[in-house]
Amino acid sequence: MKIYKKGDETSYTLGVFPTIELLKTRPQDVVRVVVHSSIEKNKGYPLIQELCQKHRIHIDIHDKTIDKLSPKSNCFAIGIFKTYQCDLTEGNHVVLVHPMDMGNMGTIMRTMLGFHYTNLVIIKPAVDVFDPKVVRASMGAIFHLNVCYYDDFETYYQQYKHHEFYPLMLKGAKNIHQVESLSLHSLVFGNESSGLDDSYLNYGQSVFIPHSDQIDSLNLSMALGLTLFHFSANQFKEKEVLRENV
Amino acid sequence: MKIYKKGDETSYTLGVFPTIELLKTRPQDVVRVVVHSSIEKNKGYPLIQELCQKHRIHIDIHDKTIDKLSPKSNCFAIGIFKTYQCDLTEGNHVVLVHPMDMGNMGTIMRTMLGFHYTNLVIIKPAVDVFDPKVVRASMGAIFHLNVCYYDDFETYYQQYKHHEFYPLMLKGAKNIHQVESLSLHSLVFGNESSGLDDSYLNYGQSVFIPHSDQIDSLNLSMALGLTLFHFSANQFKEKEVLRENV
Repeated sequence: MKIYKKGDETSYTLGVFPTIELLKTRPQDVVRVVVHSSIEKNKGYPLIQELCQKHRIHIDIHDKTIDKLSPKSNCFAIGIFKTYQCDLTEGNHVVLVHPMDMGNMGTIMRTMLGFHYTNLVIIKPAVDVFDPKVVRASMGAIFHLNVCYYDDFETYYQQYKHHEFYPLMLKGAKNIHQVESLSLHSLVFGNESSGLDDSYLNYGQSVFIPHSDQIDSLNLSMALGLTLFHFSANQFKEKEVLRENV
Repeated sequence: MKIYKKGDETSYTLGVFPTIELLKTRPQDVVRVVVHSSIEKNKGYPLIQELCQKHRIHIDIHDKTIDKLSPKSNCFAIGIFKTYQCDLTEGNHVVLVHPMDMGNMGTIMRTMLGFHYTNLVIIKPAVDVFDPKVVRASMGAIFHLNVCYYDDFETYYQQYKHHEFYPLMLKGAKNIHQVESLSLHSLVFGNESSGLDDSYLNYGQSVFIPHSDQIDSLNLSMALGLTLFHFSANQFKEKEVLRENV
């Protein structure tokens, strides 16, 4: 097993938690699981064993592989999987135009899952979502999402013209607090450093998130979190409790 | 000049941008500015020179100091400043109980500034906000905030009892979408990994941010961003444009 390089046909999870998420959600794509000899004490191991047995996935105990693939030391399990293509499903979309930061991408995936957005469209060039750094930062959220790459925005737009389009831009025409969407929509975000260029003012209803003039802009994952929180509010407004007080 | 250690009486900004923020907002605390010999080409340098001249601050050209203090290579300017104490001002507060992550702290400071929250209360033990990593992650936002440490929450609470208190908790009693505050308030957040313990259910109105059960929780800086966005909405709802389309 080699260290992952962009576009490789197999990638891997680093750590017990994301490996369990992988085995639970995409067992059909798992090639094998590699564990460190000291995993016996880890309380997640019985579940890994159970899932591997159920899906007839082989477990290798091989410390050298772990040491080679894990950049940090405290990794006990690696799940090797075939990278896969996804189809988008009926529902709302998040569209990222040229995202480049792997850590951001993981946070974004977790946040999407938190607000019931499961379709992620990425316009190339962009970060490779199957890079183990992204998989790790997403804490396994990636396996619950449909991620779909497009070579250019226009192709995607033509295919999903029936959606309401909301590009998020500093120059956006409408304050997010005054926008409500009750239809299928696509929320479009630019690159971490440059945002969306002016041509996106022509797609649907461009939106800005108002903030003080003491900062230049909110960072991408924050802007995305606020936008999903706002657009999904109707689904969550009536919720009485999040976690039972037990 | 030595590498910063927790509690030192002087700290420093790393980079041209935060050094300019320091010189603009707290010139009285600057000891001196150190620049790299290759800074001449940097377009921020004339402003550094102007501000230093205005406030009679000495500029040293000294590559070795830069190389020693900057963990990464592309740093051209360092602003050495005396750490300072702040008083809280009339206004809303953000209260962080035992925050430990330096990068998070910087993001939190930027987000606060973006939503007009300028008072930050930190309950010890906690990260040292004057650590250069925090200063850098805040991109200079730290110099615009009043940061005040307390040894324990109860002491702070007794002093600001007249505020409305909103502890953010997974077990919070009220959905944030159903909460509106028109008075002075304190928004209270727990540690990155453990949140607030149950005793905080007894202070004011505990609040939860509803999200799907596919994630355990939102991360601290995201939860804080969503909360400030929600609580400050009335100030921003009517804003017509963020950035002029020029």
